[in-house]
Amino acid sequence: MIGRYFDYNSTTPLDPRVCRIITESLDIYGNPSSAHGPGQQARLAIQLARQHTAALLHSDPEELYFTSGGSESNNWLLKGYLSQWAGTPVHVITSVIEHPSIKETLRHWSHDGGGKVTYVPVDAEGFISSQAVIDAIRPETKLISIMLANNETGAIQPVREIAQIARSRGIFIHTDAVQAVGKMPIHVQELGVDSLSFSIHKLYGPKGVGGLYVHSAYKLEPLIHGGGQERGLRSGTENVLSLLGAAEACRVAMLDMERTQAKLLWCKRLLVEKLRALAPGLRINGSLDTERTLTNTVNLFIPGIRGEALAAYLDHRYGIAVSVGSACSSNHEKKLSYVLQEMGLDEADIRSSLRISMGKFTDEVDIHYLVESIESALTHFHQLMPT
Amino acid sequence: MIGRYFDYNSTTPLDPRVCRIITESLDIYGNPSSAHGPGQQARLAIQLARQHTAALLHSDPEELYFTSGGSESNNWLLKGYLSQWAGTPVHVITSVIEHPSIKETLRHWSHDGGGKVTYVPVDAEGFISSQAVIDAIRPETKLISIMLANNETGAIQPVREIAQIARSRGIFIHTDAVQAVGKMPIHVQELGVDSLSFSIHKLYGPKGVGGLYVHSAYKLEPLIHGGGQERGLRSGTENVLSLLGAAEACRVAMLDMERTQAKLLWCKRLLVEKLRALAPGLRINGSLDTERTLTNTVNLFIPGIRGEALAAYLDHRYGIAVSVGSACSSNHEKKLSYVLQEMGLDEADIRSSLRISMGKFTDEVDIHYLVESIESALTHFHQLMPT
Repeated sequence: MIGRYFDYNSTTPLDPRVCRIITESLDIYGNPSSAHGPGQQARLAIQLARQHTAALLHSDPEELYFTSGGSESNNWLLKGYLSQWAGTPVHVITSVIEHPSIKETLRHWSHDGGGKVTYVPVDAEGFISSQAVIDAIRPETKLISIMLANNETGAIQPVREIAQIARSRGIFIHTDAVQAVGKMPIHVQELGVDSLSFSIHKLYGPKGVGGLYVHSAYKLEPLIHGGGQERGLRSGTENVLSLLGAAEACRVAMLDMERTQAKLLWCKRLLVEKLRALAPGLRINGSLDTERTLTNTVNLFIPGIRGEALAAYLDHRYGIAVSVGSACSSNHEKKLSYVLQEMGLDEADIRSSLRISMGKFTDEVDIHYLVESIESALTHFHQLMPT
Repeated sequence: MIGRYFDYNSTTPLDPRVCRIITESLDIYGNPSSAHGPGQQARLAIQLARQHTAALLHSDPEELYFTSGGSESNNWLLKGYLSQWAGTPVHVITSVIEHPSIKETLRHWSHDGGGKVTYVPVDAEGFISSQAVIDAIRPETKLISIMLANNETGAIQPVREIAQIARSRGIFIHTDAVQAVGKMPIHVQELGVDSLSFSIHKLYGPKGVGGLYVHSAYKLEPLIHGGGQERGLRSGTENVLSLLGAAEACRVAMLDMERTQAKLLWCKRLLVEKLRALAPGLRINGSLDTERTLTNTVNLFIPGIRGEALAAYLDHRYGIAVSVGSACSSNHEKKLSYVLQEMGLDEADIRSSLRISMGKFTDEVDIHYLVESIESALTHFHQLMPT
């Protein structure tokens, strides 16, 4: 039941148009490196994907490299760019709320003697200050990596301002835009970044495919060496079927974005209003500023109600899927959200927190269903509590 | 027209059963890291894939790690294993005929001061001698990487003997089995290797997914850091749909292997016999020993006939797909096959060479069609030649 899925920041269902393309393309089987007919058919498929992805990002198709997803893209950018200074003291600036594929990669790089990392903080609403980034710049700063939109709170970061400063100082600027691409308009030139990573499964396309925009002035050291695909920079037989899905996902993202954004803005207001009526103590983690946050994300808590218990109740009783932390960091271990910790929440409030992330298949009826289900859950929980 | 495709070593069409699974699984969309219903459904899909892949390799499912394909697997193994000796003199043994994802990765590692690499030669039939590998061992040899079957000639290398020696000397032994898995029975314990890489698109499954078997005694440094998927060693949201395709591809590989091997052995004999009758000067690159070569691969040349011209004629006039070199190394650049060079062929003979690789959809009728098409091409070429 797609209408009961409120975890679009974790991953999205396939758009029906993407499903159709995949179904109709199952017989495109050639290796794009082959000179013969089936190979050339596959090669065209990749060109199509590169064009549609470039259109979505407003980039040159030749500045796009396909990868297996956002994590590979982030790893590649960091390792590939920083490898040129192996053995010399290098400084990198990032934030405390980056995705693990940034944080863990930099932690590992730094641990291996690569250099120093400054993690700029966030404010109580989850925003990074561009001034804090500027203040962290040192003579040996070679790279700044700041996410465009945060997966847990939907906070959109001032990447454009940061990029202007970075470029004026000759510092490479990367943005992890995995949570932003498909949810808000992206224009790599206007944003002014040198590289940008994205993942197709966040925008109604298949998992296992993503990419990296890299400004034409730069040529990264490959993360995956070999046959020389992706213009010599990312080897491995191309994921043709998924790239056809990606092409369609990018195409429909362009078509649907404005309408989806408007609808979700309305759904978000309705959701917050209804939940506040239901639970006057409800608190929003982050901002509701429509200009500075993704339209699809609401992170909140109701004091005294454990998020994990509420999510499990909603799942088992009503088939509703919400998140109690970033899926990517909740693998096996039950860890407190580091994003909410950095925003200053205490443990009890974090444990009460719920992330509701909506998408193009969410509508008003689904919001009512969600609110009524939460109401029922709260009633149930209150009955269980000692009076 | 699947029957006209003779480039299965480059990549394979999807098995119809794999197509069905993919088509029927398009609505499985959860993130396997999520605790809710859709997430757990996706998690089960990955478990299924791991079980079926483990059954095909006769490994423990817990010793398998999924990746984006063979190139990533080879890069990961080499970089992940060798990183522990960064800065100390280390020696690696490999062969001159390895896939670029091995050769290029080692070249890059060695160039960056990582250590020394010995490339053992092959004989005129494309076989590596286990004695040559033994003779290359030094006190500081930490890794031996020898492919199981060669993509161009189908030569099956003595990995089992080499593995026995490597283990007895405490040297890690890796095999790139991308061309072998699905084409011949694999038993990682009997083979005695410490790691083995594979790619699903070589066995009638989707592109963009593969994996690495790693003996439980070893824990590699990740190539892709982040959210901690694949038991902390390979981050990135799992490629659920492709993994379901991979599960089915591995399952049907088990079912079909014996029958396909028998059929292709027959087809191979028929093909060589017919072509020899057609062109008495025909020469086989490599061996026809049924015990030491893949049943599906024939690499040959007809002196005086350019392989590229013949392949193009077969493609454009008869819709036949053959290869004139490894697809993975023919990206953009027209390079002489390094495998055939290492076997001692001169440039003229290499330029005449053709690789015909068959698969489960090839049958006797297709062989006749191929032979008749080659006959027609030779007649055409002879008419064009000055008398």
